[in-house]
Amino acid sequence: MRSDEQAICEVHSTWIDAVNAGDLARLLVMTTDDVVFLNPGRSAFRQDEFCANFSAAHEQVRIRCISELEEVVVVGEVAYTRSRDSLTVSPRAGGEVSRLTGDRLTIYRKQPDGRWLLARDANTLSPVVEP
Amino acid sequence: MRSDEQAICEVHSTWIDAVNAGDLARLLVMTTDDVVFLNPGRSAFRQDEFCANFSAAHEQVRIRCISELEEVVVVGEVAYTRSRDSLTVSPRAGGEVSRLTGDRLTIYRKQPDGRWLLARDANTLSPVVEP
Repeated sequence: MRSDEQAICEVHSTWIDAVNAGDLARLLVMTTDDVVFLNPGRSAFRQDEFCANFSAAHEQVRIRCISELEEVVVVGEVAYTRSRDSLTVSPRAGGEVSRLTGDRLTIYRKQPDGRWLLARDANTLSPVVEP
Repeated sequence: MRSDEQAICEVHSTWIDAVNAGDLARLLVMTTDDVVFLNPGRSAFRQDEFCANFSAAHEQVRIRCISELEEVVVVGEVAYTRSRDSLTVSPRAGGEVSRLTGDRLTIYRKQPDGRWLLARDANTLSPVVEP
């Protein structure tokens, strides 16, 4: 039987694949209805704003995210993960590629059907300072 | 009897008071031994690095933090809070004051003695862009 830790690792990995594929529908089935995202330089936002941002961004740029899971902690019906993320953002029209790096703290909630959904997500992504 | 939510609100408020007072000893009794902090622009760090940073910072600057608690969610032995934070950093030697604002996602763990300790803390603080 698959453990909760394994299930969460799979959600984490599927999430990153869907971000890179620009697959918003796949992301949405992995979030709670009340999900909140915290990103540097902007106010906290919920699912509707996430959808608008994500679609607009993927029209303009290609995103390549690599995320290394550093810990998975499950406590009953709640879990949290910490990962080290790197993002490469390439304008579709050409031009300068930007790179960001940072950490991510994510809270998952177990649903009555056993699925683990992303409920809160904070990242500290900031531009990489080139040497 | 005091609820878990009330206890966590008190820890949150005591934490901010201790940050503003530069009271490292008071902060340390409110964290788990394996606490991890995530801040923009640097790698995740643990208690020893937190102590070194905090002491060095308070020698150089005065910190005034205001934190508005936006939610407290308790699920068994784990809780998470979200707050909107503003930071004013004033060099003790005089000079330019910097202002930062952002959100904070904190995970607390309930101890066998009933205390709630800060276990993971991610903030998205970034400089306020003056108009």
